[in-house]
Amino acid sequence: MKIGFVGLGNMGAAMAANLLTAGHEVTAYNRSPDKVAALVAQGARPAASVADACRGDVVVTMLANDDAVRAVTFGDHGIVASLSEGAVHVSSSTISVALADQLTSAHADAGQGFVAAPVFGRPEAAAAAKLFVVAAGAPATVAAATPVFEAIGQRTFVLGEEPRAANLVKISGNFLIASVIESLGEAMALVGKAGVDKQQYLELLTSTLFDAPVYRTYGGLLAREEFSPAGFAATLGLKDVKLALSAGEELQVPLPVGSLLRDRFLTLLATGGGDLDWSAAGALSAWEAGGEHPA
Amino acid sequence: MKIGFVGLGNMGAAMAANLLTAGHEVTAYNRSPDKVAALVAQGARPAASVADACRGDVVVTMLANDDAVRAVTFGDHGIVASLSEGAVHVSSSTISVALADQLTSAHADAGQGFVAAPVFGRPEAAAAAKLFVVAAGAPATVAAATPVFEAIGQRTFVLGEEPRAANLVKISGNFLIASVIESLGEAMALVGKAGVDKQQYLELLTSTLFDAPVYRTYGGLLAREEFSPAGFAATLGLKDVKLALSAGEELQVPLPVGSLLRDRFLTLLATGGGDLDWSAAGALSAWEAGGEHPA
Amino acid sequence: MKIGFVGLGNMGAAMAANLLTAGHEVTAYNRSPDKVAALVAQGARPAASVADACRGDVVVTMLANDDAVRAVTFGDHGIVASLSEGAVHVSSSTISVALADQLTSAHADAGQGFVAAPVFGRPEAAAAAKLFVVAAGAPATVAAATPVFEAIGQRTFVLGEEPRAANLVKISGNFLIASVIESLGEAMALVGKAGVDKQQYLELLTSTLFDAPVYRTYGGLLAREEFSPAGFAATLGLKDVKLALSAGEELQVPLPVGSLLRDRFLTLLATGGGDLDWSAAGALSAWEAGGEHPA
Amino acid sequence: MKIGFVGLGNMGAAMAANLLTAGHEVTAYNRSPDKVAALVAQGARPAASVADACRGDVVVTMLANDDAVRAVTFGDHGIVASLSEGAVHVSSSTISVALADQLTSAHADAGQGFVAAPVFGRPEAAAAAKLFVVAAGAPATVAAATPVFEAIGQRTFVLGEEPRAANLVKISGNFLIASVIESLGEAMALVGKAGVDKQQYLELLTSTLFDAPVYRTYGGLLAREEFSPAGFAATLGLKDVKLALSAGEELQVPLPVGSLLRDRFLTLLATGGGDLDWSAAGALSAWEAGGEHPA
Repeated sequence: MKIGFVGLGNMGAAMAANLLTAGHEVTAYNRSPDKVAALVAQGARPAASVADACRGDVVVTMLANDDAVRAVTFGDHGIVASLSEGAVHVSSSTISVALADQLTSAHADAGQGFVAAPVFGRPEAAAAAKLFVVAAGAPATVAAATPVFEAIGQRTFVLGEEPRAANLVKISGNFLIASVIESLGEAMALVGKAGVDKQQYLELLTSTLFDAPVYRTYGGLLAREEFSPAGFAATLGLKDVKLALSAGEELQVPLPVGSLLRDRFLTLLATGGGDLDWSAAGALSAWEAGGEHPA
Repeated sequence: MKIGFVGLGNMGAAMAANLLTAGHEVTAYNRSPDKVAALVAQGARPAASVADACRGDVVVTMLANDDAVRAVTFGDHGIVASLSEGAVHVSSSTISVALADQLTSAHADAGQGFVAAPVFGRPEAAAAAKLFVVAAGAPATVAAATPVFEAIGQRTFVLGEEPRAANLVKISGNFLIASVIESLGEAMALVGKAGVDKQQYLELLTSTLFDAPVYRTYGGLLAREEFSPAGFAATLGLKDVKLALSAGEELQVPLPVGSLLRDRFLTLLATGGGDLDWSAAGALSAWEAGGEHPA
Repeated sequence: MKIGFVGLGNMGAAMAANLLTAGHEVTAYNRSPDKVAALVAQGARPAASVADACRGDVVVTMLANDDAVRAVTFGDHGIVASLSEGAVHVSSSTISVALADQLTSAHADAGQGFVAAPVFGRPEAAAAAKLFVVAAGAPATVAAATPVFEAIGQRTFVLGEEPRAANLVKISGNFLIASVIESLGEAMALVGKAGVDKQQYLELLTSTLFDAPVYRTYGGLLAREEFSPAGFAATLGLKDVKLALSAGEELQVPLPVGSLLRDRFLTLLATGGGDLDWSAAGALSAWEAGGEHPA
Repeated sequence: MKIGFVGLGNMGAAMAANLLTAGHEVTAYNRSPDKVAALVAQGARPAASVADACRGDVVVTMLANDDAVRAVTFGDHGIVASLSEGAVHVSSSTISVALADQLTSAHADAGQGFVAAPVFGRPEAAAAAKLFVVAAGAPATVAAATPVFEAIGQRTFVLGEEPRAANLVKISGNFLIASVIESLGEAMALVGKAGVDKQQYLELLTSTLFDAPVYRTYGGLLAREEFSPAGFAATLGLKDVKLALSAGEELQVPLPVGSLLRDRFLTLLATGGGDLDWSAAGALSAWEAGGEHPA
């Protein structure tokens, strides 16, 4: 399949490489062109512009935030203006529900398909083609995009016809991960101050009720205080918590843990930890209990 | 081994039955004697008093709270006064760190052994002898109690020589479970109000990063709004959150999620939900978002 | 002085009337024209459009939110396009710091003056010309607008040359009022459930350490459960709390009480209380403690 | 009147001195006897024991916490055992509602009177006989104690016949003060980081809606960052917040601001600020926003 790919950060570069591995023709675009070279070495065609990446059957976007997605989608040379009728925009970025709605309308008006397909997994999972894909959109459009999902992920969940549902689920998932970071951080501050070994504590948790990747991954980072380099930066963590709070405001759903997380991430940023992995937010509990700051 | 067992609630009765199944001689005591009969039918000897349950090598206590443990342990006919020198008290109740310290001293002064051995698992796990045992105490004492742990659980974690460490870890574990209840409750209120099916949402979570018993169990209760009869009542949930907060006060560790949980459980009790399963605390988010109250 | 006035809600109508009383020539505009008639009866000239209200020395805007201010300020027939060079825009609305910055730039580029002059006081205070005005802007511009402040308020505080400072202080002031609503609500839920009379309790507070208008006004509304009609609606309260949180995000200042307030107002809106006075947020504590919902 | 006085801390010493000034015969007791000397120099008689301070018509206790009050009240030589029938115990300490109930019963059983009469005011107000007294108890008992209240305070509020009501109101009042510390701390962190002068900000607040002693006193301490020596130490602040939370637990009233305050004071203690004035809790907001820690 002919696929355009826009956004070659940690996640996007790995995803695009797996599309190549799966035999697709990939035309890749990135705002700073140096990231394109590595992918070209793996067989991709470089795109001179966003429009140039829109000549195939599908264009995938994997960008940092709403602003970045808006910048490549709208406007005279954006994706909506450039994509062929019937072609499909697969948006894998973690974006707001509001923007998902705008993208849905704009592509429908242009006779194009739109699938929201955010993914769960850190860069290692992206490299291993082990992402979980959460997709939503019109059935025919989702079907057209399925080869993409198969190339990048281990499993796809289809959530229905409204793209926004996939974005909301992705946002809520990141909120749940951040909740685990916070609650584990509090628990480890508590048992750690009493002298319990954090690694043994984590092993106990993950051998029993908490036997899940989210506890192993984030518990391990917290137990080892391994916050740099960031797999997912605290600044992005704050962005995602704010997406959850915004969705809650639109739907009138109070999220007290979300509110706490917002304040935690703001504290982390204000005290010099914005570039740390977002798991460092969990280390603020030990700091407030008299220990070291993670930064 | 000759084992006394004090406290035949949902959990204790199942644990005592498994001690019988494993071939131990069990003398059972319960404040309200009707619960003893069922166990006698399975081969136990009824104890006329707490002291009567203290004639063996080990006495296990499995009671609702600090007050209940204090009532059977101290005083003229309590466990400390009645147990033989060298015999061992295994305390499996979820009690405060402060009480664990008092029990440690009192038994040491009386030349008796003391092991804190709280357990993780709901009544179904207790019945299936699948509990996780978290034990701490002097090595010889823990060794002496090991046949008990083998009969009731699937795995034992030994945390060192200070009994209080086991209680603190148990308390922190219940805090983590309650945190999952709260954060899942908020996430489900959010996606549920947008029309996403809660069961499908849970399946997505537990197929991916959140593939752990704690999410399957409590997520299932929340998705099905199945809060009665209680596997673990909200009143006990509040008790355990307060134990975590007290431990945090003693150790000077702030626990903001713990504080939120305290307020949630108080709200649940004040609005008629004290007898519901503690997972109902997670349903308060949907209530505050305009939905039904769980009670 | 020739003054245009845009926005004749509860607050604006009273302020404009006081400008007339003080002898100014007032040209008044409101989106729904029926509100203009009352003011014309008091001597105002009706404006056919926003531009028509921009022919004098000063134009005052008193509108509900950022969107409303943007709508009358920017665009072909907006205030920036219509005001004479050297004339002054006095913005009394409670708006975001970000919009204050945009207005500052836009008017500077157009050679016009801009003063941020939000006010403290409820409609009764506006009617009595007893508002407190918090003003910031270039000294000459503030001086030019001073006759306006003298006509509408009892005292003006000048905060410096950057308009945004006045908006931030106004936002923080509303945050402090909302904090009083919340903490008084919790305290009254506590003593009220124990049988203490709320009016006597309030009298005690306001006779001692808490002898301030904010406690008398909001404490009185809470003690009497007098939430309708709204002096300031809960929906506006949520807006203002969100302005405080946004300012905190921009400046990287966590605001845990602000976060709690956000969730309170969302709960109030989601459970049918959006049209109540914002003091009703304080009554949610008694609701969560098993009492009646304020709506 | 013959008055015993037990507890000569910052507050008690000033109150006892005012009883002397008003012409009463005061017999004074303090655990560490050096504090008695100063009062003897002002005309008091030294008491050799608590019992020795119980020979008059009234005995006043002004002690740090529940434990201290229990220690002097109960037991063989305590106040209940020593006071004459018909004499009155005036308890001015800030104690729990639960202890107030125990004191009420114990004195009733002994045929003695009991009045709960906690006071509002810092040491300066105590020295100036400007305290506010919140009293509750049987009318005749309150009447008997009234000369004490007149000597130490500027005004007395009588809350009814149940002593616990006075303690609950005192606890709730301290909770409200702590709420002001927290919310002012957040607001000052916000406007301060934007460059607004804190003293000017406070003047604006206290000239308008927030014109109350609580804002002037605590706002001044926060604006000047004047946390040492402590007028009321952070450790006592934590104690009082915990009293509010305990009262809330007994009455099933969630107190989310109270929960936040608990965590704030724990943080302050854990990071070295336990001896600072409790207003330092408000400075943690600026610390979390990247500024200096108050200790």
